[in-house]
This record gives sequence, structure tokens and C-alpha cells, in this order.
Amino acid sequence: MPDAVGFDQHPSETLRARKGFLLSKVDPDATPGYSGTKEDGQALLAEMDNGLTELQEKLFAESRFGGRKRILLILQAMDTAGKGGIVNHVMAAMNPQGVQFKAFKAPTEEEKSYDFLWRIEKEVPAAGMVGVFDRSHYEDVLIHRVRAWATPAEIKRRYVAINEFETRLTDSGTKVVKVMLHISGEEQKQRLLARLDNPAKHWKYSRGDLEERAFWDDYMSAYQAAIEETSTAAAPWHVVPANKKWFARIAVQQLLLGALTDLNLEWPKAEFDVAMERELAARS
Amino acid sequence: MPDAVGFDQHPSETLRARKGFLLSKVDPDATPGYSGTKEDGQALLAEMDNGLTELQEKLFAESRFGGRKRILLILQAMDTAGKGGIVNHVMAAMNPQGVQFKAFKAPTEEEKSYDFLWRIEKEVPAAGMVGVFDRSHYEDVLIHRVRAWATPAEIKRRYVAINEFETRLTDSGTKVVKVMLHISGEEQKQRLLARLDNPAKHWKYSRGDLEERAFWDDYMSAYQAAIEETSTAAAPWHVVPANKKWFARIAVQQLLLGALTDLNLEWPKAEFDVAMERELAARS
Repeated sequence: MPDAVGFDQHPSETLRARKGFLLSKVDPDATPGYSGTKEDGQALLAEMDNGLTELQEKLFAESRFGGRKRILLILQAMDTAGKGGIVNHVMAAMNPQGVQFKAFKAPTEEEKSYDFLWRIEKEVPAAGMVGVFDRSHYEDVLIHRVRAWATPAEIKRRYVAINEFETRLTDSGTKVVKVMLHISGEEQKQRLLARLDNPAKHWKYSRGDLEERAFWDDYMSAYQAAIEETSTAAAPWHVVPANKKWFARIAVQQLLLGALTDLNLEWPKAEFDVAMERELAARS
Repeated sequence: MPDAVGFDQHPSETLRARKGFLLSKVDPDATPGYSGTKEDGQALLAEMDNGLTELQEKLFAESRFGGRKRILLILQAMDTAGKGGIVNHVMAAMNPQGVQFKAFKAPTEEEKSYDFLWRIEKEVPAAGMVGVFDRSHYEDVLIHRVRAWATPAEIKRRYVAINEFETRLTDSGTKVVKVMLHISGEEQKQRLLARLDNPAKHWKYSRGDLEERAFWDDYMSAYQAAIEETSTAAAPWHVVPANKKWFARIAVQQLLLGALTDLNLEWPKAEFDVAMERELAARS
């Protein structure tokens, strides 16, 4: 793991949910391991873009020569927490050709007729790709628990199934990066009000937003349980304080940079005689 | 069509392939309609990002409320012409959630067992999306003609089928933007040599590159014929001089901006009582 420039401690350490983790102890306003200002953070975000671009290109390039490595970034959060901003501001540095982005909405009737992992399996990243899940199979242990759409026994079965599924992903070359963006209830209220005050954002608002908001404490309990049950050594959770959008963005960027660095990527060696090809190209 | 800032004439006019178009008359070094320098062009590219972001968000937003509009950008070019750079530098301003990117490679055995448009149909953009094809169904009238993988009669059938297919896309709400990035043979040689001189680019090089290059003139004839047969009023071709990468990028950016502007997009009107929701949110 490389040093994260500007960070005293790497987010993959400070934000990781370990044994005994308590969501209620995470301050959504905090900037763990980072002592810079908002302006420092924004500058850092821009500075790191080139590194991200190069590492992703190496990942993609390796796969063209048989490499099996890949990344899966899973983003979970309460509404308005900034998943979209992460995708826009962190993922923008990556080549779209190497990114598989999937936003999971409410399942269709067909999807509901299968096991909950059926639709997920179809969207896992291919070798060389960076997969990004905006919501994921975790909805099946979050809203399903909060709304009692599944029994407690079924929720327990799903935790186990998720761990087995993610182990399989890990064993076949996928680095799984699980991120919960954590905002406070008060911050969500302010962001919903801001949406209502901006006609260009009305399309993002629905009555359902307030309905889900009423279950805030139940959601926090569901997140706590899901993180406890599925933050494994192979696929740990990172809980990112997200009241400060700029911090959430640099933290997730560093988590991605760290994951890519951990893959020890190398440019593929030429499988042809460079000097001879150069000669042929020059004469062509 | 809005004025393109910095352009004397809009690329959708200057670069459009009209009746009597001759590819051989297009200078790959030219910057038609643009009198600025490289630095001006790079500044323009960055300046226009916000406009692209907002228009794309409107397109996406409209579709959430029943809008059927969408964009399909088709990129065709000789190898090294800079399709990847367009995707990285122009599309980066867009929200990945609203972009459907597809790079068409050599067809699989299964794909070959169907009509050539079968695999294309599956990748057309959904309502609200910006689809980007890196190569496309045009390969079936380009390399297939050059290598004589299809008879002249079959190639003719395909031109007709393509026009019918694109008319259907247009009639169902898709603005089709077809772009050929046009480089010179000499420029391609220099770019291939540059790849060979940079170990980080060796993975992009293959022996096949020189083999295709040997058919340069046949490719130009195949492009000429394809453009003649398929540059329709509904889905015209634009031939973008691409020896100067910075020009190709601003030209394609303007073509996209123009296409989005032509769609007359509006933010969806709130279907709820904003004041009441504000009251409820404030009390939540």
C-alpha cells in the first residue's frame, strides 16, 4: 500500500470496518487521516487523476495478454449521500472502455423470480475492467431488512451467500472495494431541501425519499448488521464520512488507487521484435 | 444549431458529407471553420465541459419522465486515429450513468451466425442515454469490402440495411451522429512508430496493424463508398480531420453539443407540490 499524498494515514486503514466496528461511532463530518483543507482536498483529487488513469490502463493492458485481475467498487449509501458525485468526479479519470458501470434499481419481475444474486452475477467486471456498482446485492439485506420484505432467517442466509459470492470473486482475480458513504440525517435533510429549492434538481426528488428517510434508524441498524456480517479480510467494508463531499471523493479515490497499486500491475512485455517492427513500420 | 464558440462555422456544417463528397479532398491537417491555435482549442475543450454535462443530465432527466430522446455517436477511423482520445477527453464530461459505451471487436462465432446488425441492435442506447460506438456496423462494409469477406452484392445489401436501421433509430427518438476521424497515411506511420518507441504502448501494437495499413488506399475507397451510400439527411456523416488531435476533439465535442442542443431538452417539471414537500422535508 503506497502512502496517500496528503493523508497522514491511508484511508484503507483508517476507514476499514474491523471486528467490533460500530457505525454509530463514525462521525459523518470527520476527515479521518486527512489534515488538509477543502481546497487542499480538491487539488489532491485533480492531482491524482493521472495516476488513476495510468494504473487503470495497465490493468486493462494486462488483460489483453491473459491477465485476470479486475476491480469491483461497490457503493452503498443513503439517498443524497453522493454516490453520483463519486462516479462523476473520481471515475472520470478512467477510460470508459475499461469501466463497467451498473446502477441497480428496484428489481424487475423477472429478476425477482431468481435468487437475489442472479442479476448481480451478470454484471460482475470482466478481466481488466473496473466494475462500479451504484447500489448492489446489499440492497437485499438493507431495504429488505428494514421493510421486512425478507424474514430474519432469509437475511442471514443472504449474508452467508454474499460472503461466498465475494470470496469467489476475490479468488478469481477481483479486488473488491466496498464503500459505504456515511452522511448524517440532518445533512440528508439539508440536501433534500436544496433539491427542492432548485428546479433543475426536481427530477431527482420523489415522495419516496421522505418515506425511506422515516426509517433512518432502521437503516443504520441494517448497515451495522450487514457490515458486521460481511466485512471480511478478502472484501472489507470501508465507511467513508460523507458530509463533506470533497473528503468522500478523495477518500474513495485513494481506496481505488490503493486497490490498483496492490494488484502490482506491469505493462505487458512486447511479444514481438520491437526493432524489426520499427524497421517494417518505417518502410511501410 | 447554436454558434460554436471559437468556430467561425459550426462543424456540423463544415464537416458534413453532402452529395458529391470526396474523401480525397479532405485535408487531414486542416481545421475547417476554426481559426484558433492549439492552446485556444484545448481551452475551448475544457470550457465546454460544463455545457455538455448539463445537456446530458437534462437528456437523462427527461427520460425518467417518459422522454424518448437519445444520442448515438458512431466513431469510425483507421487505427491510431484517436477514437480512444475522443472517448477519454470528450466523453469524460458526461455522467457514466448516462453513457452506453461499446467497443465492437471482431465478431464472435455466435455473432457471425446472425445478420450483421444483430449484435449492433443489442447495443443501441436506451431512452435518455448517450450511446458511443467505437467501431460499429460500418466494419461490415469497410474491412469486409477491403478483404472481400463479402461479395459486392452483399455489401450493397448492407448499405440499404444500414440506412433502414438508422432511419428506424432516428424515427424512435435517436439523434445519430456519425464521425469518421480522418488521418493521413504518413500520420499513422508516425503514430505507430511512437507506439513502438514507448514500452507503455507496446500492448496497443500488433503485427496486424501493418497488415491493415498495407490496404490503406482500399480502405479510403471503402470509406468513400460507405459515406456516399449512407450519409443521409437523418443520419449524415461528418469527416473530421484528425492529424491534429486537439482539433478532432473540439470538433466532435461541438458535434455532440449541437446534437444535444437540437433535441430542445428541458428540465422535467415537478409532478409534486414543491412547497408542501419542502414543508414535509423540513419537519422530517
